[in-house]
Amino acid sequence: MIRIGILGYGNLGRGVECAVKQNPDMELAAVFTRRNPADVKILTESVPVCAISDVPKWKDKIDVLILCGGSATDLPEQTPVYAELFHVVDSFDTHARIPEHFAHVDAAAKKGGKVGIISVGWDPGMFSLNRLYANAILPQGKDYTFWGRGVSQGHSDAIRRVEGVKDARQYTVPVEAALEAVRGGENPDLTTRQKHTRECFVVLKDGADAAKVEEEIKTMPNYFADYDTTVHFISQEELDQNHKGIPHGGFVIRSGHTGWNGENSHLIEYSLKLDSNPEFTACVLAAYARAAYRLGQEGVTGCKTVFDIAPAYLSPKDGAELRAALL
Amino acid sequence: MIRIGILGYGNLGRGVECAVKQNPDMELAAVFTRRNPADVKILTESVPVCAISDVPKWKDKIDVLILCGGSATDLPEQTPVYAELFHVVDSFDTHARIPEHFAHVDAAAKKGGKVGIISVGWDPGMFSLNRLYANAILPQGKDYTFWGRGVSQGHSDAIRRVEGVKDARQYTVPVEAALEAVRGGENPDLTTRQKHTRECFVVLKDGADAAKVEEEIKTMPNYFADYDTTVHFISQEELDQNHKGIPHGGFVIRSGHTGWNGENSHLIEYSLKLDSNPEFTACVLAAYARAAYRLGQEGVTGCKTVFDIAPAYLSPKDGAELRAALL
Repeated sequence: MIRIGILGYGNLGRGVECAVKQNPDMELAAVFTRRNPADVKILTESVPVCAISDVPKWKDKIDVLILCGGSATDLPEQTPVYAELFHVVDSFDTHARIPEHFAHVDAAAKKGGKVGIISVGWDPGMFSLNRLYANAILPQGKDYTFWGRGVSQGHSDAIRRVEGVKDARQYTVPVEAALEAVRGGENPDLTTRQKHTRECFVVLKDGADAAKVEEEIKTMPNYFADYDTTVHFISQEELDQNHKGIPHGGFVIRSGHTGWNGENSHLIEYSLKLDSNPEFTACVLAAYARAAYRLGQEGVTGCKTVFDIAPAYLSPKDGAELRAALL
Repeated sequence: MIRIGILGYGNLGRGVECAVKQNPDMELAAVFTRRNPADVKILTESVPVCAISDVPKWKDKIDVLILCGGSATDLPEQTPVYAELFHVVDSFDTHARIPEHFAHVDAAAKKGGKVGIISVGWDPGMFSLNRLYANAILPQGKDYTFWGRGVSQGHSDAIRRVEGVKDARQYTVPVEAALEAVRGGENPDLTTRQKHTRECFVVLKDGADAAKVEEEIKTMPNYFADYDTTVHFISQEELDQNHKGIPHGGFVIRSGHTGWNGENSHLIEYSLKLDSNPEFTACVLAAYARAAYRLGQEGVTGCKTVFDIAPAYLSPKDGAELRAALL
């Protein structure tokens, strides 16, 4: 059994807890929180909730620690610290800072003789893998990534900061016509506006000016100004009832040409349609926790990404079983 | 530069030749044929066409030999023989005999200190990889593979053996309603007939009985009897003009559930739409030839499949470039 620890018990941590339950070769050893442990109720009976300061005491009782904090401030600090003590897996997703994070985790994991797998999830993660495979197979081609339809937490938060807004939920929506043009092999050059639209469901505070709120959202730099944005004003009840889920997904497409003169077209498409973004991300983290454990058993140390790990390490089946069943 | 040899110059061999041209870190060293080399014209200028008996003489002049023969009789014999002399890659696709083929290639490659990668292409190959990744991520779920719309060489050959048939082309077509049911998360149990239909374009010999030919095709065991099959009788000119391509493709879908009580649904879908089945397969072979070469440089020996190879080995970019560009 692979003994799993979870650090951070929000949506992602709870997702990892559910994923561990589905993997018969894993068991949950402990959950660590920055909150008062007595205030945190988890789903798994008889598993302790511990203070984050207790983590080092679990050094010999946990094989892989799955880090479920945020990329802005938690993971850049936590992943290197705990990679000295355990094999770790995180979902660090600030693309521009990945090289720096990789270097820190690599140094720490090597020092501790551990494996640290970073940027695991679906983007970065499964989408990255599909970009790599498709690029290697079709050197002459063009990449497209579309996200959605799904909830963007960052954009929802941005709307909530607008004066007069009580609550909000933002959906990122791929433009169907753009998807179809890509699938048709047209290799279009697409602007930001042509690829995605943004759909906002907003609950106003009493007395707020709807027209002003809508204008402020639609013209917000970085978040909305470059997109066609629609704003729907709804009641808190409606938001709670119809928009409480955290669905997401998207499409990675590579369109390329082969033949002596590039005469044949090919399309590789990978897509995800997810009811729960954090639960799916958690499932990917769990699979890579298995890989971290196994690589560790082989004496491998240092930082890895999804690019560095042979697919077989993710499966509980051995090589012969995999070749017979899935090849 | 990775020096590539091609053994067998049919559609697949020619596809590999085109793929090598697209990969700037590869060069074609020689093409080997069982035919009289003087009768074989290749596309690349100044590259020799040699008799298959000459292969051993190229031991120090070729890094990776890509085997482009058939799975029925060529590859079971050739791959183990040449895996002793070169790193090799093949597209062996007789699923039931993969374990046996693996064992033979493994023994030979280890004896020669080489790497042999077998069953590379899209199914087995990229489809297998996607089945593995999706199964590891969603342990509670169901797999679906659909093929087409595309030409099945085996079924086309079977029709050509029917008395009264001059020429034929058979397309395997996925049933749209079945695809939609799977995408809708219904996890249906599908019979052979519900998943694919078969569409046949047939040229009759002079004086042949169309009704008899159609009946014989539709009731042919293994090939057609379990499917809804349509037969179109056309002229040789029409066949040559409208059905000369070798398109194919398909869909690998896994539908699964997450959450404490399986309350959330997820869909992972990978699809290919290929103008040329052999050229796409050839591109996958070329990418894995790079992996074979690199693994060989690291001192790895023995037989591998797509499951055993970390994605980064397929790309000409190094780890830091990959993390910056594609993660």
